[in-house]
Amino acid sequence: MKSEFAFINRIRAQAARYPQAGLVHGIGEDAAVIGQRQSHVTLVTTDLLVEEVDFKLSYAPPRCLGHKALAVSLSDIAAMGGRPRYSLLTLGIPPACGEAFWGEFFIGYFSLAERYGVGLIGGDTSAAPDRLVIDSIVIGDAAMNSVVCRSGAQIGDDIYVTGKLGQSAAGLELLRRGERLREEADSPAQRALRAHLMPEPPIRFGRYVASRGLAHAMIDVSDGLAQDLAHLCQESGVSAIIDFEAVPVAAGAKLVTDSSEAAFTLAISGGEDFELLLTMSRDAESALVSTANDCQVRLTRIGEIVAVDKNEPATRLWLRRQGQLEPLAVQGYDHFAQYSGFHSDKEAATEN
Amino acid sequence: MKSEFAFINRIRAQAARYPQAGLVHGIGEDAAVIGQRQSHVTLVTTDLLVEEVDFKLSYAPPRCLGHKALAVSLSDIAAMGGRPRYSLLTLGIPPACGEAFWGEFFIGYFSLAERYGVGLIGGDTSAAPDRLVIDSIVIGDAAMNSVVCRSGAQIGDDIYVTGKLGQSAAGLELLRRGERLREEADSPAQRALRAHLMPEPPIRFGRYVASRGLAHAMIDVSDGLAQDLAHLCQESGVSAIIDFEAVPVAAGAKLVTDSSEAAFTLAISGGEDFELLLTMSRDAESALVSTANDCQVRLTRIGEIVAVDKNEPATRLWLRRQGQLEPLAVQGYDHFAQYSGFHSDKEAATEN
Repeated sequence: MKSEFAFINRIRAQAARYPQAGLVHGIGEDAAVIGQRQSHVTLVTTDLLVEEVDFKLSYAPPRCLGHKALAVSLSDIAAMGGRPRYSLLTLGIPPACGEAFWGEFFIGYFSLAERYGVGLIGGDTSAAPDRLVIDSIVIGDAAMNSVVCRSGAQIGDDIYVTGKLGQSAAGLELLRRGERLREEADSPAQRALRAHLMPEPPIRFGRYVASRGLAHAMIDVSDGLAQDLAHLCQESGVSAIIDFEAVPVAAGAKLVTDSSEAAFTLAISGGEDFELLLTMSRDAESALVSTANDCQVRLTRIGEIVAVDKNEPATRLWLRRQGQLEPLAVQGYDHFAQYSGFHSDKEAATEN
Repeated sequence: MKSEFAFINRIRAQAARYPQAGLVHGIGEDAAVIGQRQSHVTLVTTDLLVEEVDFKLSYAPPRCLGHKALAVSLSDIAAMGGRPRYSLLTLGIPPACGEAFWGEFFIGYFSLAERYGVGLIGGDTSAAPDRLVIDSIVIGDAAMNSVVCRSGAQIGDDIYVTGKLGQSAAGLELLRRGERLREEADSPAQRALRAHLMPEPPIRFGRYVASRGLAHAMIDVSDGLAQDLAHLCQESGVSAIIDFEAVPVAAGAKLVTDSSEAAFTLAISGGEDFELLLTMSRDAESALVSTANDCQVRLTRIGEIVAVDKNEPATRLWLRRQGQLEPLAVQGYDHFAQYSGFHSDKEAATEN
């Protein structure tokens, strides 16, 4: 790596290999320039990844990190029902990350970008002496009337989730125990590692669900099912019941816990699964299932949206177990809790 | 500061006070949603500020930092001739920055945002244990045919720059010498400190110049006049001549240097002035001058665009002094040079 400009010019040359429809100017101007279309909306999301907080270079291969930096933001666009189109990448670069690191990082980044037709159109760099800092920005678009929000859940809706939960948290736990990703290997443990290091959000499923009008509300599962469902309920002014038996607990979650209770807790609070959580009325179920099949995505009905109890001060999550309702404690990740000494609202924040 | 979500909710409440035309969904969804318009383009820029690299908390009051984080990105939108509309803010937060810090930071941020009608619509937070990291993202728009690029400079164009140069670099040098900003004080030194800590890019001027068709090429002066002009020349495939006597050297630059030669060098290489550099044919000069007057912006003609010499391998900057041409060495800031041990292409990188 020579200078900042040499670094940027190399990325620019790589980015130019994937020309983007609708792009007017990419890297090389003061700002990127994108065309607009009547009756369409622009979606923008940003995700910050800080070394030692959100990932460790001791276990995350740079190629995986490049993949994940983009994947987490693609997940947000999918959760709105949008189509990812462009990305920007802002890097705070420590001395430890040199030529070889960035070569691998961008193989992972561009490989995922190409699969979804996403063009890297800008970014910024600075030195970050002690640790790598990555801000991933993705811009998507959608037809004006097909965007799906967190706030649209309706009383009586069923709640669905894609994939299996707790896989990423299990992968993280396995990494902490010294397991490492091996390229060709396939086992429940390796699948959990891969889920954590190279998540594959159901990007097309999110977009198809939205364009076919099959979700009243949607959110991606990044902070843990319970916390993300709580967000959705708060924005919608509703409560929710989760069926204990219905939640799809990943095999990995069972691998790192010693009871089905603990595996369940990991599944609903582990975070970083980057699956999609959505609510929809029952009459659309067959269309939803067939959309999931089209996208080769597993879809599970896990509960229902209910009215906020008049005796309760706010929206609430309930767990239904053998027909009995009990309040569901919301645990999830709080970035501030463990590093800064800030008082956290939660008793225990599960890292992810 | 309680939890991450309490922190975000407080910013969200502040942001909601400034409702934005065209905004469909702001903070609170997986991605922000913005309307599109036929024949318009979206402009996107991102700027990373890392503590101890791009600023020091020992001299930058948090209110100034909030202002500057937004200002540097507004400058990029102005340089494209766009109108800033929305912003996102990504924060890596160290323990040292608590309630009082963020209260002040957001006074500075929202105060500038309100002046230009910019709405904060999203962002992300993480812990950043050792140092504050700020990624400032601004989204603007422009009519399709009024965007101004770096690549449009034409042979024979005059070169213009707004404001005076070297003021920000002088302010940084004064801060290093122990001078501090005093709110009410006004002196050449205090104006230099203010230029560094709370830059005021000529945002409206950039937009008016573009919409009136008064620039062939434009760039903001963030890395130093010489380096930014070199970028513009490279993108346009031209060379440039700068008139030594014409460059508007700020009073602050003279304050911290001991010769007019050194003050000139600071002015063309100091960086972070966030002025606008543009090229235009002479016949538009009176319209340019009257636009500058409309915006209360100082505008100086400092040189001209020339063809690349056939004997030269690439674009080149020349300095004209008393009628004689000499090659102008391009010095400017390289983030990687001083912190990471990367080999820099430049002999001396001037920090800014």
